[in-house]
Amino acid sequence: METEKKEYKVIGTRPIRHDGVDKVTGRALYGADFQMTGLLHGRVLRSPHAHARIVSIDTSRAEAYPGVKGVVTAKDLPEAEDRVADLGEGAVNLKYLCDNILASDKVLYKGHAVAAVAATSPHIAEEACTLIDVEYEVLPPVLEVRQAMEADAPLLHDTLKTTSMGETADEPSNVASHIQHQLGDPDKGFAEADIIVERDFVTGTVHQGYIEPHNATAHFNQDGQLTIWCSTQGAFTVREQVAEILQYPISKIKVVPMEIGGGFGGKISVYIKPVAAMLAKKTGKPVKVLMNRADVFEGTGPTPASYVRVKMGATKDGKITAAEAYLAFEAGAYPGAPVGPGAMCIFAPYSIENVIIDGYDVVVNKPKTAPYRAPGAPNAAFGSETVVDELAEKLDIDPLEFRLINGAKEGDRRADGPVHPRIGCIETVEAAKAHPHYTAPNGKKHHGRGVASGYWFNIGLESSVTINVNSDGTINLIEGSTDIGGTRASIAMQAAEVLGIPAESVNPSVVDTNSVGYTAVTGGSRTTYATGYAAYEAAQEVKQKMIARAAKLWEVDEANVQFADGEFSSINGKEEQISFRDLCAQLGQTGGPVVGSGTVNPGGAGGAYATHVVDVAVDEETGKVEVLRYTAVQDAGRAIHPSYVEGQIQGGAVQGIGWALNEEYIYNDEGTMTNASFLDYRMPTCLDLPMIDAVIVEVPNPGHPYGVRGVGEVPIVPPMAAIANAIYDAIGIRMTELPMSPDRLLKAMGKI
Amino acid sequence: METEKKEYKVIGTRPIRHDGVDKVTGRALYGADFQMTGLLHGRVLRSPHAHARIVSIDTSRAEAYPGVKGVVTAKDLPEAEDRVADLGEGAVNLKYLCDNILASDKVLYKGHAVAAVAATSPHIAEEACTLIDVEYEVLPPVLEVRQAMEADAPLLHDTLKTTSMGETADEPSNVASHIQHQLGDPDKGFAEADIIVERDFVTGTVHQGYIEPHNATAHFNQDGQLTIWCSTQGAFTVREQVAEILQYPISKIKVVPMEIGGGFGGKISVYIKPVAAMLAKKTGKPVKVLMNRADVFEGTGPTPASYVRVKMGATKDGKITAAEAYLAFEAGAYPGAPVGPGAMCIFAPYSIENVIIDGYDVVVNKPKTAPYRAPGAPNAAFGSETVVDELAEKLDIDPLEFRLINGAKEGDRRADGPVHPRIGCIETVEAAKAHPHYTAPNGKKHHGRGVASGYWFNIGLESSVTINVNSDGTINLIEGSTDIGGTRASIAMQAAEVLGIPAESVNPSVVDTNSVGYTAVTGGSRTTYATGYAAYEAAQEVKQKMIARAAKLWEVDEANVQFADGEFSSINGKEEQISFRDLCAQLGQTGGPVVGSGTVNPGGAGGAYATHVVDVAVDEETGKVEVLRYTAVQDAGRAIHPSYVEGQIQGGAVQGIGWALNEEYIYNDEGTMTNASFLDYRMPTCLDLPMIDAVIVEVPNPGHPYGVRGVGEVPIVPPMAAIANAIYDAIGIRMTELPMSPDRLLKAMGKI
Repeated sequence: METEKKEYKVIGTRPIRHDGVDKVTGRALYGADFQMTGLLHGRVLRSPHAHARIVSIDTSRAEAYPGVKGVVTAKDLPEAEDRVADLGEGAVNLKYLCDNILASDKVLYKGHAVAAVAATSPHIAEEACTLIDVEYEVLPPVLEVRQAMEADAPLLHDTLKTTSMGETADEPSNVASHIQHQLGDPDKGFAEADIIVERDFVTGTVHQGYIEPHNATAHFNQDGQLTIWCSTQGAFTVREQVAEILQYPISKIKVVPMEIGGGFGGKISVYIKPVAAMLAKKTGKPVKVLMNRADVFEGTGPTPASYVRVKMGATKDGKITAAEAYLAFEAGAYPGAPVGPGAMCIFAPYSIENVIIDGYDVVVNKPKTAPYRAPGAPNAAFGSETVVDELAEKLDIDPLEFRLINGAKEGDRRADGPVHPRIGCIETVEAAKAHPHYTAPNGKKHHGRGVASGYWFNIGLESSVTINVNSDGTINLIEGSTDIGGTRASIAMQAAEVLGIPAESVNPSVVDTNSVGYTAVTGGSRTTYATGYAAYEAAQEVKQKMIARAAKLWEVDEANVQFADGEFSSINGKEEQISFRDLCAQLGQTGGPVVGSGTVNPGGAGGAYATHVVDVAVDEETGKVEVLRYTAVQDAGRAIHPSYVEGQIQGGAVQGIGWALNEEYIYNDEGTMTNASFLDYRMPTCLDLPMIDAVIVEVPNPGHPYGVRGVGEVPIVPPMAAIANAIYDAIGIRMTELPMSPDRLLKAMGKI
Repeated sequence: METEKKEYKVIGTRPIRHDGVDKVTGRALYGADFQMTGLLHGRVLRSPHAHARIVSIDTSRAEAYPGVKGVVTAKDLPEAEDRVADLGEGAVNLKYLCDNILASDKVLYKGHAVAAVAATSPHIAEEACTLIDVEYEVLPPVLEVRQAMEADAPLLHDTLKTTSMGETADEPSNVASHIQHQLGDPDKGFAEADIIVERDFVTGTVHQGYIEPHNATAHFNQDGQLTIWCSTQGAFTVREQVAEILQYPISKIKVVPMEIGGGFGGKISVYIKPVAAMLAKKTGKPVKVLMNRADVFEGTGPTPASYVRVKMGATKDGKITAAEAYLAFEAGAYPGAPVGPGAMCIFAPYSIENVIIDGYDVVVNKPKTAPYRAPGAPNAAFGSETVVDELAEKLDIDPLEFRLINGAKEGDRRADGPVHPRIGCIETVEAAKAHPHYTAPNGKKHHGRGVASGYWFNIGLESSVTINVNSDGTINLIEGSTDIGGTRASIAMQAAEVLGIPAESVNPSVVDTNSVGYTAVTGGSRTTYATGYAAYEAAQEVKQKMIARAAKLWEVDEANVQFADGEFSSINGKEEQISFRDLCAQLGQTGGPVVGSGTVNPGGAGGAYATHVVDVAVDEETGKVEVLRYTAVQDAGRAIHPSYVEGQIQGGAVQGIGWALNEEYIYNDEGTMTNASFLDYRMPTCLDLPMIDAVIVEVPNPGHPYGVRGVGEVPIVPPMAAIANAIYDAIGIRMTELPMSPDRLLKAMGKI
């Protein structure tokens, strides 16, 4: 483990990404580009109701329509009693999983899939969907987490039996589960506080807003081999989910990951992939299913809306004595809101001895939520970081100084249990404090400055890399990680560093599930960390094998060959030397090709911290908040390719800005989303934003050979609170509901 | 090394081939199936002359033709002086290589490529070819090896300076090279003989006759990455050849091997692949080039016609005392006839103390020859096996008994140097002798029986295999060997045997050059041997890693875990047991995925022997020879998948029958092939053939862990002589010219 600052030759440089040219010239192949002889086109029929019982589905008119080759409903899924939960999911969860693909007894949200058609053209498939007769018994929907927790709320399921106090009950409820973490003695902690701030917060339902809609083409060949070409964050995860939903062996499924146009967590769960497979099976033809934007908004997982209550106490000299949080997250139609991660992250930037956190996972009549960049953490941090700001304000302590007083350090225990290894919390706050942005004047009327911190724990999980050495001194690197943000480069660079070759001498390929070892999703900020780690290990194996070849050439012991700066040399006696490149040309004659593999499931994904500084201007007439300047400081552990770290920081901050100011699912009383398009669902564009100044801090992660920490998630955590704090600084009003859109600001200012 | 007969669970069984269903249902993708957005279509203009100087090429009319996007000629190849022979070819050879792709100064055979067009449709490209104005200065051609060796023969090159006696001279000739092998004292050996037979033989030019014509699609992306999708016996070999011809780095070339419709050696050399790449570079678009059948006959390498003289002497009791051979092979337009392999094989079935062999590689105005199943050996064996038959006849010794007296054995030295390891020469002769076919009556008028033996040395070379273990106990096996005859199965089975899993639990994939370690061509009968060996090694690595996981699970030392019959068990103390499948489910938790790789360049490719028995009927009226019964006995070392061994034996024998009786390039005086279609180039169909009885003998090869010997080549070696010997048995005439077609038989019988 090398964690000290070292001189690297490749790491820290900014080579052109290997897939760049194909992407900017339009040659990269995305799922929608996929073509195949005899291809049919699928279309999903979706529920017009937010909550209804399915009385009957009659597909006969659709089946008879010319050009229609097959129609599937939930009846075509394996019978519930035949389902075997192979992959660690319980039987109930498996029912949820299947019902979300095609509803069986009930529809639980507007846009819930109920049937699908395969036809010779997409237009015929769409037309045929209108010929499927579904009889619904419409039920009242419940669309908000606190309402869903009320005793008389409409019930989505009869299987959930947790009370709104977190106890197990006989009667069904909408509460799927309750978690609680406690550290120290919160009552004692609050008693020691000189000041206590408590506020409650509400956040809206927001979508990841990836550019590329979901897509999938499936083909069953005649001996039952199923191939799926699709956009996904994890081909192996698609393989597992499809295997489970269709009750089909993973070894008969090949998933080919096409290029991906964004995911942010939203392309992990499957939606139309099993449907395409079912249609392919029924028709005996390859079937392609594409979503449109409305399908994406209404039929895929957004991140949860939530109700959050935070209470924190501190002494006069600024030491936090206790913290309490209540997190109620909307799971959408089926259990599984990221309340756990929210609880893990909420107080993690601070060293607090007394903490209690309660979390509730609550179903509502909205699409089943999916991960979205640091899932759960932004909702939680909006509350905690606003309360921290208020504490600092009331104690008249600079908010970054307040964070330095309380900042989390190596050895501190998180409320949910783990003890921090070496982390960069303090260092990011220090860097923000020293930044010219923070020291610049901030005095104009209705202009304000805010800061907030954020934490994401990052994950490890399994990754595999294989390296094949070419005779010209280059290597081909095989990986299973979807490249969303430049990871072909950041993984290749780690192998290049080991072998002393340029990044350009590595040729990385993201391949299908038949062609590389198991690799978990690109998500949780794990790819550059874990797949990079696997690349490091694979390169180490290559290095060792090359040393053995040099030893063979020179007839010396392997122990007498050393490798440095791309050169093998014989020590102890002979003065032989050969470059990596020249030795590559001699592999055939010294025993055959050299292949190295690395597989990992590392435990040491070091957590990442960020501190953001934002200046805003509030327009008193319109309520519009303009972001004037934005600086995002983040600990990357070691920035393998700084440009892509900066890109992640900028992208995360911008998505946070959208979430903070404009983005939300707007529902009418019937539970229909009224803004299911990019025209009405308002994401920030470059016209709405300043340049995001990304500042990389490097506190090497001891759990990675080069010190890498995941960087993709944490930048979305601070923006909402940072902006809320800046608005407060500008107009003296604490905004506690997201988005902080013009209408809410006008209302808060008493103007409407 | 296990060479003794053992009990295997998978090896020796006959599972369905993994690629079978896709191939029989039409879903397998061949090169001509490949489609891509913006695809252009290429067409090659070929010389109408067998020998001419190119005075000028004017492409302007073609370039101006609507729909034409680019035209290339030899001028678009790298300048001769800029060429660097990276890959071991000398500069002269590189010129030959390039000139055979697109002729520069001279055309050397009818069908020689001179220019190529890329256009928006194949029809436009074809039309545009007629608009290319090439001015030729026509030269007299030389079409036959003995004529080409004459002093006043038209000269193809001014660089070849070997005399027809094998000496180096100042004056140019058509003799590219001369080889000589000598063992013992031939003069003394002939002096000791009681009987000497000497005859000369002529064989025609024959083509491999693969079903699928050559095809290639090439695309340069904007940063210079070149991808080629094609039918080939070796994707890495295509990569090397294209790299050399275009003087382009191998690491910027990806070759994607599509399925192959036969090769037999004819799909190793490149023809249109570099041309497609040149057109792609020039046009900036992907370009697909397909050959038609005439292109294949006239523009790709057949196997050489040859003149062979064999002299052998034996004592009265049947012991061969000396052998002499003179082999003059037609290289076609550029040097490189397989006279070396012919010399290696000609006397290899016999233990002879005194041998001399002279071989000549001679250029003629025909397409540059290419390998075809045991290249060179059939030409040579036609001579030697006919002479052996005559010796046995004259000594009144049964021809198989004569082979047993003289049969090659372990420890014998081949005339070209190597000493035989354990071989199955005697065993195949014994099996033929004991076969009911050989002991059946053979007495009808004009019916005859013949036998002949054959040898092929087989090759090793580099292969790489990577195995990725799935959580359900199956494995994905990655290989780089084109699967021509069922090698996905035969390679998968060797991995399955190691791991104690069924063949069906292995999912083999043949992948592109970016996705697997270097692997040499599928040819030389090396794939099941060498790539199978790599699969064995990769599976061994998987086994070791799995043992380590079991040891970790059980907290015991690795040395205390054993693996047998698909079960890991703890010895020495605890009585733990876990199946391969169950352990696979626990890899994530015990350290991550398991990947194993195996790379080899093995030296121990054991030579293969075959002895064939054939019954024929000669129709005295028409001269037609009918094959009545055919038995082919062959040593497979160890038959991994007996059905595919039998398939190779049957296919080789049938191709030999075609070569023996009908197949040949028929030229007119101008050097134009007059039968360049399957209508006129007469290959045997199932209507012309009896069932070929394939008999597998297993003498394990000590150079392979399961004893595998290559099986694909040797079955084509004996048929010509066996049939000639049968014809002699039927009508008393020794046929010495191939093919032994009706007209030649009538002539030999004095009927015309």
